Amino acid sequence: MMIPMRRHKRAISSEAAYELLHKGEYGILSTVNDNGQPYGVPLNYCVLNDRVYFHCAADGHKLSNLNGNPKASFCVVGDTELLPDKFSTKYESVIVFGITNEVTGDEKQAALEALIKKYSPNFHDEGLAYIKSSSSQTRLFGMSIDSITGKARR
Amino acid sequence: MMIPMRRHKRAISSEAAYELLHKGEYGILSTVNDNGQPYGVPLNYCVLNDRVYFHCAADGHKLSNLNGNPKASFCVVGDTELLPDKFSTKYESVIVFGITNEVTGDEKQAALEALIKKYSPNFHDEGLAYIKSSSSQTRLFGMSIDSITGKARR
Repeated sequence: MMIPMRRHKRAISSEAAYELLHKGEYGILSTVNDNGQPYGVPLNYCVLNDRVYFHCAADGHKLSNLNGNPKASFCVVGDTELLPDKFSTKYESVIVFGITNEVTGDEKQAALEALIKKYSPNFHDEGLAYIKSSSSQTRLFGMSIDSITGKARR
Repeated sequence: MMIPMRRHKRAISSEAAYELLHKGEYGILSTVNDNGQPYGVPLNYCVLNDRVYFHCAADGHKLSNLNGNPKASFCVVGDTELLPDKFSTKYESVIVFGITNEVTGDEKQAALEALIKKYSPNFHDEGLAYIKSSSSQTRLFGMSIDSITGKARR
């Protein structure tokens, strides 16, 4: 489905790419609207059962794009370090392509709990209460991981 | 042109948004291909004369997308801090929408020098030599800043 990377020498293993995807603090979700205007927005997220999950409440633009075209790209950047004398940068990044859909019911609950576990591991009980009180106002989307590609310059 | 943000309370001033855009270490460029597949990729960049400039050499996918559809979105994320007990995150981010085009000649040279100034400020002479030796193999794109929106939770 995807065009292969040109610089294969910078590709990292699938394992390393998944590890970066799991540990990233936030990622950029890229979507597109009906006029072909791309839109990239930073999000907190979690990975569960080989899918990426994220909230979709605060942003009408993102929701509108996903309703019109469920295709998305998700990018996580890890550690970076400028190399001024080499006119370059050390970095690691991962890019996922997939299809998004809104999730409800048990899948939504499981994803919300996974978000709590990732971002608020010491607030498990409070997190469950928070989900209970806010879940009905929160829309949650899942994204398939149809392809995942990691790159690094070290 | 753009749909306004839903959460106006988190909007930051244009000045603050421009400041974040200028100082960011990297940004995510979101483009889309002919099949409506969005693609977000991290890039080093500079801002010069109210345009965003970035290299376009290492990535056939990005180049192919921009040739087919010059509309792009560019996102820079500043400092973030998890707030586990609040089930939230402090962050600042800026999103630019604009039209891209390849630049050549004097505009290309000026943008390459601005990249050196931003990322390798202590290697000015070496940077000019580097530009001279590599410029012919480097493609450079500029992006207009048609809209710029900053958000923050502090």
